[in-house]
Amino acid sequence: MSDPTEQGYFTEENSAGVVISRNANAKDPRLSEVMAALIKHMHGFVKEVEPTQDEWLQAIMFLTETGHKSDDWRQEFILLSDVLGVSMLVDAINNRKPTGASESTVLGPFHVPDAPERPMGSDICLDGKGDKMLVKGRILDTEGNPVARAKIDVWQTNDDGFYDVQQKGIQPDFNFRGVFRTGEDGAYWFWGARPRSYPIPDDGPVGKLLGALGRHPYRPAHVHYIIDAEGMETLVTHIFDPDDAYIHSDAVFGVKQSLMAEFTLVEDADRIAQEGVDAPFYEVIHDFVLAPA
Amino acid sequence: MSDPTEQGYFTEENSAGVVISRNANAKDPRLSEVMAALIKHMHGFVKEVEPTQDEWLQAIMFLTETGHKSDDWRQEFILLSDVLGVSMLVDAINNRKPTGASESTVLGPFHVPDAPERPMGSDICLDGKGDKMLVKGRILDTEGNPVARAKIDVWQTNDDGFYDVQQKGIQPDFNFRGVFRTGEDGAYWFWGARPRSYPIPDDGPVGKLLGALGRHPYRPAHVHYIIDAEGMETLVTHIFDPDDAYIHSDAVFGVKQSLMAEFTLVEDADRIAQEGVDAPFYEVIHDFVLAPA
Repeated sequence: MSDPTEQGYFTEENSAGVVISRNANAKDPRLSEVMAALIKHMHGFVKEVEPTQDEWLQAIMFLTETGHKSDDWRQEFILLSDVLGVSMLVDAINNRKPTGASESTVLGPFHVPDAPERPMGSDICLDGKGDKMLVKGRILDTEGNPVARAKIDVWQTNDDGFYDVQQKGIQPDFNFRGVFRTGEDGAYWFWGARPRSYPIPDDGPVGKLLGALGRHPYRPAHVHYIIDAEGMETLVTHIFDPDDAYIHSDAVFGVKQSLMAEFTLVEDADRIAQEGVDAPFYEVIHDFVLAPA
Repeated sequence: MSDPTEQGYFTEENSAGVVISRNANAKDPRLSEVMAALIKHMHGFVKEVEPTQDEWLQAIMFLTETGHKSDDWRQEFILLSDVLGVSMLVDAINNRKPTGASESTVLGPFHVPDAPERPMGSDICLDGKGDKMLVKGRILDTEGNPVARAKIDVWQTNDDGFYDVQQKGIQPDFNFRGVFRTGEDGAYWFWGARPRSYPIPDDGPVGKLLGALGRHPYRPAHVHYIIDAEGMETLVTHIFDPDDAYIHSDAVFGVKQSLMAEFTLVEDADRIAQEGVDAPFYEVIHDFVLAPA
């Protein structure tokens, strides 16, 4: 198998087989398996589209520019993976949940690991912008029992559609971020601002590709969650605004029907007073069900 | 077709279809076709190997490093395409020759467009290194007629295994490069040095990948040709040394049986005198047959 003389030389017909057999001495069997599948699918793609030499060079230059656009703060290959649905597919494959458990979606590039733990009920809006929103619900297991001591890490953009890390020095540090921990009843609640849709960074080669494909770069309004609890699978997900203009065309394919939240405008004077605010606010009630680890 | 509400949201099962339908507004039909095939094959690959999130991130980082290694002088994505056999496949697809015509192989990254035109019979070895080699033959059409005024652009490494452009300031400019033009008889001949095998640049991510795959980075000894003539298809090819240690394992899959040359050591004193040299030399006799344009 690994003797190339037995394989013969490379031809258009046997191309993938010749390349795969050349990798017969790989030490890591997983690398062998992944490379064999990659070569098979890449050669299948090339045979299907029959690129000209010029199209091949365009692809080389696109990949090169995508690399050059990437640095410690910007990851253009992740954006490329996102807009081609690859990130969501990898997420789906790695998060097949049992019936009844909440579904996952992409983490995205704007999570920070060191957001401050805040008392339940805190307002994560530190810049005073936007329409006040109360989010509440329960963390449950698949049998409907409350999950105590669950850690709920939430983040969202501010009312201008930017995360704090995109506007360092403009937004307060940790604006619209917070970590909360449930009590025995599994309940959580916090204040934020009704989220807005926003574009993924589109001033690079991936943005140009989206333009050529007739696609916009927007994500529909959402709030991010990572929910962790002992004995449970970590849940990385969002809740989405079903009334958002981009809800059916998320640039990164993150939307799922089960992740729709309901944003209800509360105008009742008693409720307003009871919540200690001075104007109507949006209320979102959304439970999450964690799968067992 | 282009209304995502009819497609439903992204799931593991329908992933490629949802992404492809999102591109329905692309202006360029060729771009649509290429992207649809790319998405289908990429999603097929991901579903087959089921990468972990960590493996996905390794792939992102590999592509990023490949981009960062590329600049005006180094093209790591072309190397990647080469070692995966993609460059040779694109070459094969774009150069299906009629029966009897000489076969093509990869151009490689070391051609320069402005090599000097030299009188037929010139020595392209300007540094005096290596085993003297006389290359000669004829340029023919598929009916066996000589092709007059064919332009023959040749280049090879010096005896240390480097092209002049890899050793600017060390090798003379245009060392081992020359452009020749045939007369009415279609004959060509020039002096060089017997070529050596050499490694492709392997100090980047592609070299690391080759190492992990248990592969060496060497190309077997060869001389490059581009042959152009009016009314003919341009031929981009090499001749190879069949006795080279790497002849069955070219790192970029460029070898074809029909591209083997014969390197004959000429020790006959009369021939040596007749050729105006003072020691035994290698002789390579190789004709090329051009396909009609």
